[in-house]
Amino acid sequence: MNFDLNEAVEILERTPRTLEVFLSGLSDGWLECNEGTDTWNAKEVVGHLIEAEISDWMPRLNIILQEGENQPFPPFDRFAHLQKNSHLSIDEKLMEFQMLRKQNIQRLLEAVDPIEQLELTGLHPDFGTVKLRELLATWVVHDLTHISQIVRIMAERYRADVGPWAAYLGILNRSLPK
Amino acid sequence: MNFDLNEAVEILERTPRTLEVFLSGLSDGWLECNEGTDTWNAKEVVGHLIEAEISDWMPRLNIILQEGENQPFPPFDRFAHLQKNSHLSIDEKLMEFQMLRKQNIQRLLEAVDPIEQLELTGLHPDFGTVKLRELLATWVVHDLTHISQIVRIMAERYRADVGPWAAYLGILNRSLPK
Repeated sequence: MNFDLNEAVEILERTPRTLEVFLSGLSDGWLECNEGTDTWNAKEVVGHLIEAEISDWMPRLNIILQEGENQPFPPFDRFAHLQKNSHLSIDEKLMEFQMLRKQNIQRLLEAVDPIEQLELTGLHPDFGTVKLRELLATWVVHDLTHISQIVRIMAERYRADVGPWAAYLGILNRSLPK
Repeated sequence: MNFDLNEAVEILERTPRTLEVFLSGLSDGWLECNEGTDTWNAKEVVGHLIEAEISDWMPRLNIILQEGENQPFPPFDRFAHLQKNSHLSIDEKLMEFQMLRKQNIQRLLEAVDPIEQLELTGLHPDFGTVKLRELLATWVVHDLTHISQIVRIMAERYRADVGPWAAYLGILNRSLPK
């Protein structure tokens, strides 16, 4: 096991600004391309990250701290953002994500004692008993998953353009995610 | 085909700063973890990007412009960085990459006329005839591949820590690259 709260926060606090530097000012060609029918573009991925800040990580953290396994987590709607924040520009989304993440990290550090509380448990609707530290590690890897998704979407846009080099470019040699 | 020189440059110019924001100041635990024997850590990936700025993209671009198919590209040593720049700190590497990339984009924009020259060809040692625009699209996707690799390496570090959530995290559900 490698989880450490301070190291986890190092990633959580970098993700919004990393995405801002990478995405702000890009042409619509990059921001609106996707990997095919029913897949997300980069703007939609940022929308999903915003929705998770609001409805996923902190509510679940609070349930673990307050209810333990007495109350299962409410389900998280992975598609809610496609309606709820789809009218925002990419810069508005990036700012919103950054603001929410900053608040959430502050609340996380206030609420959780890493010596005493990381082994506390909650009840996941699919998995059953899960630990607070697993939730927090998942928050980090969820960020990494979606940064990876964004760059993969963009690489896909140039699949034909790279010609024979496609064979050497690992990012183009994976099956699309579900 | 989606390649457009200005749009390609949008990605090329963002990569160094994106990596700087993401990697600078991270704990060694994140910077030095890898995916197992004979795989790279994040610092080594940045070293490889530096080496490619020096020995891959611009030399090949110049051969296409000056020699066409009369002279094949020299082979690019994908492992040269493991000796050549391995003594640099992550911040030194990030600065070096940023400086080299800035120079190279400037030279690219001076050297290439996107109306007249994108269809020019060169001779790749494995692939045979390749086009200048394929080389430039590959430069972009190579950036994306290695950003993706860095976040995947970091996700791997928490594979056990996420517990049952591993099943939901796409980044953990792929086979490792060759």
